[in-house]
Amino acid sequence: MDAPFSIQWTHRLRFSVNPFAKHDVLDTLCKELLPIKILVVVDDGLAESNQAFIDSLHAWCSRTEQVCASPLVVAGGEKTKNSFDTVDLILEAVNTYSICRKSCIIAIGGGAVLDAVGFAASIAHRGVPIIRMPSTSLSQGDSGVGVKNGINHFGKKNFIGTFNPPFAVVNDITLLKSLPDEHWRAGLSEAIKVALIKDSDLFDEITTNADALNNRDIKAMESVLKQSALLHLQHITNGGDPFETLESRPLDFGHWSAHKLEQLTDYEVSHGDAVAIGLSIDLLCSVKLGTLNEDIASRTISLLKQLGFPTMHTELSNPELLLGIEEFRQHLGGRLTLLMLKDMQEPVDIHELDASIVRQAIAELM
Amino acid sequence: MDAPFSIQWTHRLRFSVNPFAKHDVLDTLCKELLPIKILVVVDDGLAESNQAFIDSLHAWCSRTEQVCASPLVVAGGEKTKNSFDTVDLILEAVNTYSICRKSCIIAIGGGAVLDAVGFAASIAHRGVPIIRMPSTSLSQGDSGVGVKNGINHFGKKNFIGTFNPPFAVVNDITLLKSLPDEHWRAGLSEAIKVALIKDSDLFDEITTNADALNNRDIKAMESVLKQSALLHLQHITNGGDPFETLESRPLDFGHWSAHKLEQLTDYEVSHGDAVAIGLSIDLLCSVKLGTLNEDIASRTISLLKQLGFPTMHTELSNPELLLGIEEFRQHLGGRLTLLMLKDMQEPVDIHELDASIVRQAIAELM
Repeated sequence: MDAPFSIQWTHRLRFSVNPFAKHDVLDTLCKELLPIKILVVVDDGLAESNQAFIDSLHAWCSRTEQVCASPLVVAGGEKTKNSFDTVDLILEAVNTYSICRKSCIIAIGGGAVLDAVGFAASIAHRGVPIIRMPSTSLSQGDSGVGVKNGINHFGKKNFIGTFNPPFAVVNDITLLKSLPDEHWRAGLSEAIKVALIKDSDLFDEITTNADALNNRDIKAMESVLKQSALLHLQHITNGGDPFETLESRPLDFGHWSAHKLEQLTDYEVSHGDAVAIGLSIDLLCSVKLGTLNEDIASRTISLLKQLGFPTMHTELSNPELLLGIEEFRQHLGGRLTLLMLKDMQEPVDIHELDASIVRQAIAELM
Repeated sequence: MDAPFSIQWTHRLRFSVNPFAKHDVLDTLCKELLPIKILVVVDDGLAESNQAFIDSLHAWCSRTEQVCASPLVVAGGEKTKNSFDTVDLILEAVNTYSICRKSCIIAIGGGAVLDAVGFAASIAHRGVPIIRMPSTSLSQGDSGVGVKNGINHFGKKNFIGTFNPPFAVVNDITLLKSLPDEHWRAGLSEAIKVALIKDSDLFDEITTNADALNNRDIKAMESVLKQSALLHLQHITNGGDPFETLESRPLDFGHWSAHKLEQLTDYEVSHGDAVAIGLSIDLLCSVKLGTLNEDIASRTISLLKQLGFPTMHTELSNPELLLGIEEFRQHLGGRLTLLMLKDMQEPVDIHELDASIVRQAIAELM
């Protein structure tokens, strides 16, 4: 017997500069979800750097009766994904406070915290609803908007995880104000990635506003990240493959080397920087494969540099970097499928990538 | 922005008495799925008791080039769900043998092994496809057919788990031949449960064939388990709530006390026996609540006894048993929703259950 069935989800993406204000986004989402209890989890990086936000969060917690405990502060950054510690902490809290499948976890922080907390939420009682509040440019424009979560295991990025659409994602652009420059700009490499594949107007906007973005113009950043988030969301919900069962992963353009470089440097290279380097490599590979005009590659690499991103790293000469191709293939499985660029908005899948091509590309960047 | 999207699944249920034969079910499923690699995992209870089956499995593995290693033997029974050991073992094998999302894990065993291996498969690389081969009457007629997996944590059954439809479920009735009597009959309490709620003809068939079932008539058992599996499958795929986001869980009739009794006895009481006891309690509660005719309750309890099931246990007088109601509520969350019976095929949801009613029902069984 073959019995087909389907599950419906709604991906809610909200923007607000004061989401905890009365009748603002959080109040509205809670009216819709009607959670029995609410557990709030906050990235320690945010908790330590943005007192105004923490104050407004505490005020909301005080007047929201479903909130069952003080916000739980967890370690931020990639290290939170390198062990089961954060996941265990969340599972213990779910048990202690009797958080159920009709309750809700609100996770506030960078992409790593959203990934680890999201994974814990997805396996507790087979799935407690989660509202994500990304606090970095990277997570607001890309990872926080997705349907994936995960932690690292066996030294491999996201070896363990699930696909689990959040109940909602809430982007508060003002959270970016307290970020150091490296994290302020981090989301721009992913925005450039999605612009290259899907939206040349966004690419032009980033180019035009590069100085404003460097000068931490919040309006300029808001416009870029909003478009980046919507492009990612549309790809997930309209791209025909939300849970990645097919071959192609266009949103992972430039990511095979980015993931490997992060691992080789023990995550000292941030994801935003690694993606800038990974994009540079794959753009030059695209040129060398004869599919891409050199002008687009050099314009993109210049733009990345102008925005303060590195486009090379000494570890690129580590022969182990090339293992990233096989690890990228293994994660999704099946035959190798890498995205290269033919032209702006014209991605093309390739199924092999010669090591000599990669070495030439890297040599050009070094 | 609200972006709705859906995921389609096909639930494949296959029956075969020689699934590893050439061109039989396993060959056909592999032709459909085209897995890059196959990892086979076997319950130690089955590996130790059914050499003929293990031989045919080994023969299939030898002639199937995708099989990447000798079948991995894991501990069977509920203990396999009481720690992370089995899950860790599978994750390590996934890493060692480079099992990817285009590969496949074939899990063969009782419900506990399918639950633990299924959970590991669902979180490795965010989900490696799994083919389940339930080897017990309980798992062939009920748990193996479902879309859930899980392990126990904090002393709570299935505290950790996911919803993850298997690629296919393969039921080989001949596997039941090597089971001890307790496991031979175990699936019948779940079959009686689903018959009470959905199919009075099946209830009559079990009643008529009680002696044959007691005498281990494989044809009689095959007919009952096939109907039970199909009723469970139809409920999941056509019941409108495959991932249990709503209030009602009709397939968990009688399960609040069953789960608690298993835990109170450190899983010495098997799930099949616990469900028989749990059904007896909730049938008598249904009578006491004035919703059910006494005749149906007493006929069912007699039938359970006739089939060799216990319908009482000394631990029923443990006051902690009643905590099972709150734990049942917590797992799904929201308000308490228990299923009681008004009549054959006429379930009714209730939202409170007075302890005195439960105590009276138990007193009648003791």
